[in-house]
Amino acid sequence: MSEIPVEKISVGIVGASGYGGVQLVRLLTEHPAVDLTYLGGDSSAGQDYTEIYPHLVGRVDLNVEPVDLEVIASRCQVVFLSLPNGLAYNMAPLLLEKGCKVLDLSADYRFDNLDTYQAWYGGDRHDHGTAAQAVYGLPELFRDQIRTARLIGCPGCYPTASLLGIAPLLKQGLAQPETLVIDAKSGTSGGGRVAKTGMLLAEASNSLAAYGVARHRHTPEIEQICSHLTRNEVLVQFTPHLIPMVRGILSTIYATLRDPGLVRDDLLTIYGAFYRSSPWVTVLPNGIYPQTKWAWGTNRCFLGLETDPRTGRVIVMSAIDNLMKGQASQAVQCFNLMMGLDESLGLPAVTFYP
Amino acid sequence: MSEIPVEKISVGIVGASGYGGVQLVRLLTEHPAVDLTYLGGDSSAGQDYTEIYPHLVGRVDLNVEPVDLEVIASRCQVVFLSLPNGLAYNMAPLLLEKGCKVLDLSADYRFDNLDTYQAWYGGDRHDHGTAAQAVYGLPELFRDQIRTARLIGCPGCYPTASLLGIAPLLKQGLAQPETLVIDAKSGTSGGGRVAKTGMLLAEASNSLAAYGVARHRHTPEIEQICSHLTRNEVLVQFTPHLIPMVRGILSTIYATLRDPGLVRDDLLTIYGAFYRSSPWVTVLPNGIYPQTKWAWGTNRCFLGLETDPRTGRVIVMSAIDNLMKGQASQAVQCFNLMMGLDESLGLPAVTFYP
Amino acid sequence: MSEIPVEKISVGIVGASGYGGVQLVRLLTEHPAVDLTYLGGDSSAGQDYTEIYPHLVGRVDLNVEPVDLEVIASRCQVVFLSLPNGLAYNMAPLLLEKGCKVLDLSADYRFDNLDTYQAWYGGDRHDHGTAAQAVYGLPELFRDQIRTARLIGCPGCYPTASLLGIAPLLKQGLAQPETLVIDAKSGTSGGGRVAKTGMLLAEASNSLAAYGVARHRHTPEIEQICSHLTRNEVLVQFTPHLIPMVRGILSTIYATLRDPGLVRDDLLTIYGAFYRSSPWVTVLPNGIYPQTKWAWGTNRCFLGLETDPRTGRVIVMSAIDNLMKGQASQAVQCFNLMMGLDESLGLPAVTFYP
Amino acid sequence: MSEIPVEKISVGIVGASGYGGVQLVRLLTEHPAVDLTYLGGDSSAGQDYTEIYPHLVGRVDLNVEPVDLEVIASRCQVVFLSLPNGLAYNMAPLLLEKGCKVLDLSADYRFDNLDTYQAWYGGDRHDHGTAAQAVYGLPELFRDQIRTARLIGCPGCYPTASLLGIAPLLKQGLAQPETLVIDAKSGTSGGGRVAKTGMLLAEASNSLAAYGVARHRHTPEIEQICSHLTRNEVLVQFTPHLIPMVRGILSTIYATLRDPGLVRDDLLTIYGAFYRSSPWVTVLPNGIYPQTKWAWGTNRCFLGLETDPRTGRVIVMSAIDNLMKGQASQAVQCFNLMMGLDESLGLPAVTFYP
Repeated sequence: MSEIPVEKISVGIVGASGYGGVQLVRLLTEHPAVDLTYLGGDSSAGQDYTEIYPHLVGRVDLNVEPVDLEVIASRCQVVFLSLPNGLAYNMAPLLLEKGCKVLDLSADYRFDNLDTYQAWYGGDRHDHGTAAQAVYGLPELFRDQIRTARLIGCPGCYPTASLLGIAPLLKQGLAQPETLVIDAKSGTSGGGRVAKTGMLLAEASNSLAAYGVARHRHTPEIEQICSHLTRNEVLVQFTPHLIPMVRGILSTIYATLRDPGLVRDDLLTIYGAFYRSSPWVTVLPNGIYPQTKWAWGTNRCFLGLETDPRTGRVIVMSAIDNLMKGQASQAVQCFNLMMGLDESLGLPAVTFYP
Repeated sequence: MSEIPVEKISVGIVGASGYGGVQLVRLLTEHPAVDLTYLGGDSSAGQDYTEIYPHLVGRVDLNVEPVDLEVIASRCQVVFLSLPNGLAYNMAPLLLEKGCKVLDLSADYRFDNLDTYQAWYGGDRHDHGTAAQAVYGLPELFRDQIRTARLIGCPGCYPTASLLGIAPLLKQGLAQPETLVIDAKSGTSGGGRVAKTGMLLAEASNSLAAYGVARHRHTPEIEQICSHLTRNEVLVQFTPHLIPMVRGILSTIYATLRDPGLVRDDLLTIYGAFYRSSPWVTVLPNGIYPQTKWAWGTNRCFLGLETDPRTGRVIVMSAIDNLMKGQASQAVQCFNLMMGLDESLGLPAVTFYP
Repeated sequence: MSEIPVEKISVGIVGASGYGGVQLVRLLTEHPAVDLTYLGGDSSAGQDYTEIYPHLVGRVDLNVEPVDLEVIASRCQVVFLSLPNGLAYNMAPLLLEKGCKVLDLSADYRFDNLDTYQAWYGGDRHDHGTAAQAVYGLPELFRDQIRTARLIGCPGCYPTASLLGIAPLLKQGLAQPETLVIDAKSGTSGGGRVAKTGMLLAEASNSLAAYGVARHRHTPEIEQICSHLTRNEVLVQFTPHLIPMVRGILSTIYATLRDPGLVRDDLLTIYGAFYRSSPWVTVLPNGIYPQTKWAWGTNRCFLGLETDPRTGRVIVMSAIDNLMKGQASQAVQCFNLMMGLDESLGLPAVTFYP
Repeated sequence: MSEIPVEKISVGIVGASGYGGVQLVRLLTEHPAVDLTYLGGDSSAGQDYTEIYPHLVGRVDLNVEPVDLEVIASRCQVVFLSLPNGLAYNMAPLLLEKGCKVLDLSADYRFDNLDTYQAWYGGDRHDHGTAAQAVYGLPELFRDQIRTARLIGCPGCYPTASLLGIAPLLKQGLAQPETLVIDAKSGTSGGGRVAKTGMLLAEASNSLAAYGVARHRHTPEIEQICSHLTRNEVLVQFTPHLIPMVRGILSTIYATLRDPGLVRDDLLTIYGAFYRSSPWVTVLPNGIYPQTKWAWGTNRCFLGLETDPRTGRVIVMSAIDNLMKGQASQAVQCFNLMMGLDESLGLPAVTFYP
């Protein structure tokens, strides 16, 4: 592990009361290089943070403050924005101007092309200059760009799981991109800490359904990076499902191999090489398929692989914790890279099982 | 509802102690045309049935008896075999010879070609004559054959959910069969009442994984019926997943449309027509996707449909209760047809929600 | 089973969109003596009922109508009120005056003494005359009064489970009332179909806590009936807990025996005699303790008993389905009695296990 | 935090394949003062540890070895025994003789009086000398004795939760001991990684029941410490329940106050003072009741308090993670004390919520 800087980095979180926020609070209060100096939120401003999350009584002693960009910039070197889509792009430009580095966990800075953003998310964007500086915060694919970035658009949870499973296939030209089918399954915490009838335990427990079929907003995000990897436009079939569990995403990815002679061992070798320098991706040995629970509370991504000689397809299974590698801990991984720290500093690696 | 016969039909269950068995006991004790006269099991022989399932105290007053085919044939007009694979084919021939009608819930009589059976299930089959009489017990596709059958090979749970979703596509030639990807999700009761570490609540709860990728034994069963529907050999990509819930299967089915101009409304019309005479299949209206919980404890199959004009694919979602339409209540549906009763007699139609 | 009347009884439900309402819709549409002629609700008025509960597509063809008491009275012989506390007492007097019989599922008509109601529930009651006619709808204790009643105050879910466990002890003077401790556990459906953060699957799953300690509003209801049974004022210690499951209540009841020489067998005999004519209460044999799941979707109450010779206490465990025997199916049981039908008509008796 | 010793302490675990074992492996591999040098198990000897727990791939590189006490003693300064009851007492004497310190997680060394052990657990004990040296490993009550102990009998999960809730009441003479009722609720991981039908997700999910009523073996363990605290023999009513969740225990404790004038605030003050020097016990503020999930994966115990002026009782709610403060992390807390380290070294304090 690299040296921990003598002087801690002052960090703020805007949008601290949601599930993304509370992961960040947990990670950053225990991060050896961070001094968490600001928690912001509009609806919860004025509250002691432990009123919102009583499990932190005795461990976190911070109040939620109103969101005032001047104040934030004066107190924080780095700011995490953990807000609903469409808010960050009114904050990031000023924060950057004041000299802060910014990590945005919403969709606002994930797209090269703001027309794509506006087509899927709406809004009226005039921050093209700022957006052009943003780097897509998937360290396994964009590590070098992240190191020098001042603004990170942190990936969505489904794109993280899916792209880590797909990248070696497309980068090496092993699969036919137009055959990509991504059947993804997520725990209900992906819906956030928002009271919705369909997310009640009484409704969502002991059941399972797809949603957003053929129109989920993570589709263009996956396609953008797939297109980047193949240098051609790629369309993917992406279907999310809601699973009766709290955390975790499993993406089951199907693609037809260009060379039907490739077998599992070949692909394990290729994947192993692809992720050799990526400590947070684990390619599982022959015949072991990932359980989402193995990643619970950690920054890890587990990949399992299978080929089907009968059909000529590869099946990749990719498991992450949607709130960690799919959201908050991946943002901290990017933060580490941006600040010249060890990529793994302060990131939890081993879950408590079972 | 058709007339209920004056004289009740004497029925026996071999293999009453498993989950399939207890569904059958529940259904047949409340079935107005049935007199449940025999419960058989080897390991549980001699026990009062309520020692095995105490929730039936005061409602079921039967003992489990040893499996003696002569005794069974002398007391039962119809026999349900609810046993592990590979046992029924040593019992059915004798029972049929003695004049019983037989419904087998295992894989033993699902295959036209016993070579396929032996390739996937092993065993040494010499009952070709018997097997040739067996009808595949999926009433929505083989209703007429079931009416006159004396031996039914009841479908697997995954094939039931999957085939009901696929059949209209293939029968009408709407989709390219070689593009079929079936991503299926099942509750853990599919594993039966067998103590396995991986099925413990402590292990399986709050997690999700695929299993049997590219080699699950329900694959050839799905392929056999798909091939029957298209009159050509079809290979499908079938991947089952274990979901942290007790009951239910959702099959998410992907296929490329032959005519990319087809839209959801077209397919809803086609599916509606296809299942017009099938009271147990409900094609959901525009934009409603099935929850597995809606089928809990019933014989229903819910189908949802979506087309993706960007990719030219159709996505079908098919939800059933794996132990009911996927196993026991579907067998009773076949029984009704075989015995000239109303297809729906004694079958539960509406779940208790939530 | 007694004769089913030739002419069906017209029945309406006010407050059909909640969990109590949907149980009633399920039960009454399948009830052989009922013609369900009216569903009422304010927020959902105008909707097809299957828009609210899509699992009923193809099975229920009713619209939700605005709540107009004149209209209801003109179309219904019997009205079920399934509303939040404090609304029924403005409706019941007029409906009764118009000749309807009324079953109220809220707390409004559970109390002999309206001062007790107002102390725990607030409100300003002027319907003393109406309230005085109301009968507490626990058939196992008040069967004869229910038969002749025109207004039923249906019990709460916790009081139902708790009182069925306690009644034989207090009625026979076996236990010291002041030592009663009731530790009750409920699934989250008890909170209703209301979007609350704490009831989200992400929050309530995999966790457990008490709530309303020493001040839950079911306390005075339990005490009223206990006092009735002992003919002295009884105070009980009642603590509810929220359990990560959808349905079910288990009340674990502790009391010091007056005669420490009583053993389990004695109590099983006494309980068996007490409930001899109550088909919906099952006293479990020696050493079997009830699982809440055994009652799922049924009107049953399972009782288990233990004595502790070391401490001189009896421990009673009482399990019901909170939405059924604890709410909707018990109301239908009362309806059957009120209308001179067989007490058990149309009530589900056997769950689907597991 | 105190200094971490320059030289790491060599530690071994006997019984590494169970749930207690895997928590210890997780904790000790990340513990800054520990060098984990030995994993032992009989049934799993010879296996790579990640074959048993694949989520540790890439993080733990240890093999399970046969249990050979000589080998263990030669390689370990400290040995954790994580075995079924009745095995440790054949191992501890030799290990102590060879100079090891021993922490036993079974019941073998929890009892002052081996007759009590033999009455509840059976077995034939001849190790009275060894047993007499053992200290009960509940640091909040026996911190000083643990510091100098060479053999620790680590508490059971239920006793830990219960005693931390009860201790201030009994130690200060605030409650009448004979009125103690402990209604405890545990996740199913408490049953261990053992394949039992009743612990299958399909069986245990969505349900709830009591077990071991009036005869659970944690009863005498709770009574021993209660008697120690009051200096009189205490009998308690203890009832465990199985809850459909993986981890966590909530003990709801009822007792009649000696002084019925005591109110919640008084007790909060008394409890706060009692646990002032105990960093792992958190007394929650007024009106906040503990969720078991708040303790997930940590060594924390959360206490909530309520008084009921109507009945004169106090109700204490105590929540822990049964595998952590109830088992493995508490053992590590004891280890820290025994080895002169900071009591909190290497112990996880903040869960990932939700």
